[in-house]
Amino acid sequence: MKNKSAVVLLSGGLDSATALYLAQAEGYQCFCLIFDYGQLHKKETICAVRIAKQSGCAYGISKINLPWKGSALLDKKVKVADKITKGVPATYVPARNIIFLSFALSFAETIKAKAIFIGAHAQDYSGYPDCRPEFFKSFIKMAKKGTIGGNKIKIATPLLHKNKSQIIKLGKKHGVPFELTWSCYRGKKYPCGKCASCHYRAKGFKEAGLVDPLID
Amino acid sequence: MKNKSAVVLLSGGLDSATALYLAQAEGYQCFCLIFDYGQLHKKETICAVRIAKQSGCAYGISKINLPWKGSALLDKKVKVADKITKGVPATYVPARNIIFLSFALSFAETIKAKAIFIGAHAQDYSGYPDCRPEFFKSFIKMAKKGTIGGNKIKIATPLLHKNKSQIIKLGKKHGVPFELTWSCYRGKKYPCGKCASCHYRAKGFKEAGLVDPLID
Repeated sequence: MKNKSAVVLLSGGLDSATALYLAQAEGYQCFCLIFDYGQLHKKETICAVRIAKQSGCAYGISKINLPWKGSALLDKKVKVADKITKGVPATYVPARNIIFLSFALSFAETIKAKAIFIGAHAQDYSGYPDCRPEFFKSFIKMAKKGTIGGNKIKIATPLLHKNKSQIIKLGKKHGVPFELTWSCYRGKKYPCGKCASCHYRAKGFKEAGLVDPLID
Repeated sequence: MKNKSAVVLLSGGLDSATALYLAQAEGYQCFCLIFDYGQLHKKETICAVRIAKQSGCAYGISKINLPWKGSALLDKKVKVADKITKGVPATYVPARNIIFLSFALSFAETIKAKAIFIGAHAQDYSGYPDCRPEFFKSFIKMAKKGTIGGNKIKIATPLLHKNKSQIIKLGKKHGVPFELTWSCYRGKKYPCGKCASCHYRAKGFKEAGLVDPLID
């Protein structure tokens, strides 16, 4: 057993998968934390499990109850946009990363993990306040005040200042199984190719000069 | 319908019940958020529901999965102490208030509530880091950075600098139904009278010059 462990927030998308492979490359024994928070695109969690298995890491699925809905990811009545929108997208789930990180913190403190890895990145800044650098900075401070062991837990955001193509190049270098990742907000059999998440994924692969194995 | 609403974290204990009645006295329409986080003393959530009903407020139970256990409140193998212990008690659940407040924040932002009420207080400082004033200060800052509407949501800790007898006097004044509240960590038919929670409750009633209707 490796002598340092990390809790990795794994969504099933390519960002968190890259964060996982980076954590492994840094020598961490990783525990993947996957959330079933009522998202309509259930496929995401199935993909997260496949990625965790492929990486050889332990994983757990935590079921979360957010009955207040209000987001296009939780409520069929709220539509996912077919284009990039300005401001806060309909897919915004209030405090989602705050909740995910809080669970990771509880888990990490219990198992005495040295780090928490999260794959948030620059492309999400404008729409999702809990993806911004200033949010993570304040979360880290809060975690130190609100736990016993929190000042010994590093909250690692290795992709925070990277764009999608940089993440894809980095993932490629570290052997991320992109064919197992899922980005589409709609979660049907094939990616819709229209939602913001599909758009950014396609743009990222194109700019990285690589072919997306998922739609090849 | 009142024109300002609040999310109240309701545990079933007398502190959070007092926080609820104070929020009502301040004119808030309250939504009680009750957590089933796998605590062994299930009686707590039953009491929380009774208190919410008695107050006439809407309530919801959010089920949370903390499979990593490690606390005496979650794991039968870890014993609740029969006395007041120094430092962090076995009943400490890492990041519990951080998780609860994160859910409350998500809920409050979704329904555009003006406030979140939590009944944390001075007696919990030493053992529970996520009950200390400096924790709440940093949580409030983080909430502003990590949400869209977070800077419009007040996180109210009306009991933070009060001890148990002061809380009981305040609760009495506002008509808190103490007979419906539950404090004992063991959650059996009757309070054990030995755990830290029973000890502080008894001391509080004695110092307030009142009789605890639960054990009368």
